[in-house]
Amino acid sequence: MHHIDVSIEKDIFDANNRIAHANAHLLKDHGVRAFDLLGAIGSGKTALIECLVPLLNARGIRAGAIAGDVYGDDDFKRVVASGIPAVNANTGKECHLDAHLVQHALEDLPLDDIDVLFIENVGNMVCPTDFQLGAEKRIVVVSSTEGDDVVNKHPMMFRESAIGIINKVDLAEFVGCDLDRMEADMHRYNPAMRVFRTNLKTAEGVAPLLEAILG
Amino acid sequence: MHHIDVSIEKDIFDANNRIAHANAHLLKDHGVRAFDLLGAIGSGKTALIECLVPLLNARGIRAGAIAGDVYGDDDFKRVVASGIPAVNANTGKECHLDAHLVQHALEDLPLDDIDVLFIENVGNMVCPTDFQLGAEKRIVVVSSTEGDDVVNKHPMMFRESAIGIINKVDLAEFVGCDLDRMEADMHRYNPAMRVFRTNLKTAEGVAPLLEAILG
Repeated sequence: MHHIDVSIEKDIFDANNRIAHANAHLLKDHGVRAFDLLGAIGSGKTALIECLVPLLNARGIRAGAIAGDVYGDDDFKRVVASGIPAVNANTGKECHLDAHLVQHALEDLPLDDIDVLFIENVGNMVCPTDFQLGAEKRIVVVSSTEGDDVVNKHPMMFRESAIGIINKVDLAEFVGCDLDRMEADMHRYNPAMRVFRTNLKTAEGVAPLLEAILG
Repeated sequence: MHHIDVSIEKDIFDANNRIAHANAHLLKDHGVRAFDLLGAIGSGKTALIECLVPLLNARGIRAGAIAGDVYGDDDFKRVVASGIPAVNANTGKECHLDAHLVQHALEDLPLDDIDVLFIENVGNMVCPTDFQLGAEKRIVVVSSTEGDDVVNKHPMMFRESAIGIINKVDLAEFVGCDLDRMEADMHRYNPAMRVFRTNLKTAEGVAPLLEAILG
């Protein structure tokens, strides 16, 4: 927020980071690898979970999820329908999950029965970046329908994420989206980023992405 | 943000509202009608301005714009290309415009040469709602590609807006979006909302929308 005193902001981030650190320890103790899924509303974060669960199941890897949203349980219901343990985390008004919300969600998950935990953040390209949750990696999903300038508009989100997914590649031609520009912008902000192009409705491109997530 | 003291939050909003009030007065003094355009990244806020400018020009109504973004000038360049005076307002890290940013932007606009001012907020479905800018009306744009649960996930944004636009109706069938659900959700949260369906790439549906904006 624009007018908040910098020292207060620092206190908030410090407190969040301490809890994020505790979350990371708790997850490690239970042998859980956690991934923070970022991206705008409708980019495909829930669809990504839906795509990955059967691939993980096929390898005997047990998934779980925290479904973050400002309000409602639309994503939560979809995740549960994919057959994995999940917790719905509503932020009420906030535009991001924070480590404290995740800490409470972890209390409600059977951590010993989960190998890979997807933490689906609130659909938002700005707020979540400042709030570490204790996840091992951040994965950011954008879609062609968001416009090919979406990466350029959000440097921080791409600098902070290890993997970038360009989704809805099948719609790129209908919306006049230059996928190469998106990918080039990702690498400009984050040269080490692993970038994948997917159509999560058909699971196109998901197999190599899964290797990168687990790698 | 999650941990901020409520009294500080109240101070922030009070300060913002005072400046918003001053902005509204300044705009009125110059005979400018201002509209706050809300919606996710890629929903079609900039495309809406591009569509409306020629229709306004045809009536002798002079438009202007403030292009809000976290970073960059992609939207600003598009707005300028449509031939209207505009100011680029980068928030740096913030996920919304605020009245103070708009106040500065207004200093850089030829207000006596503008009848209708579009204030394109940052692409975000959460943060902008709390920050009045001094505009006459809020207009929220969603697109079919965001998923038909996008309205249900963001009650506040729809309660606070007078006009709701469902854009990219041509893509609804490709993404399995139920446009009727979107419209019903808008009316559930805001029974008085004027709802329009558009394809802003072809200007389909824009003429009646313009009447509602000016009405």
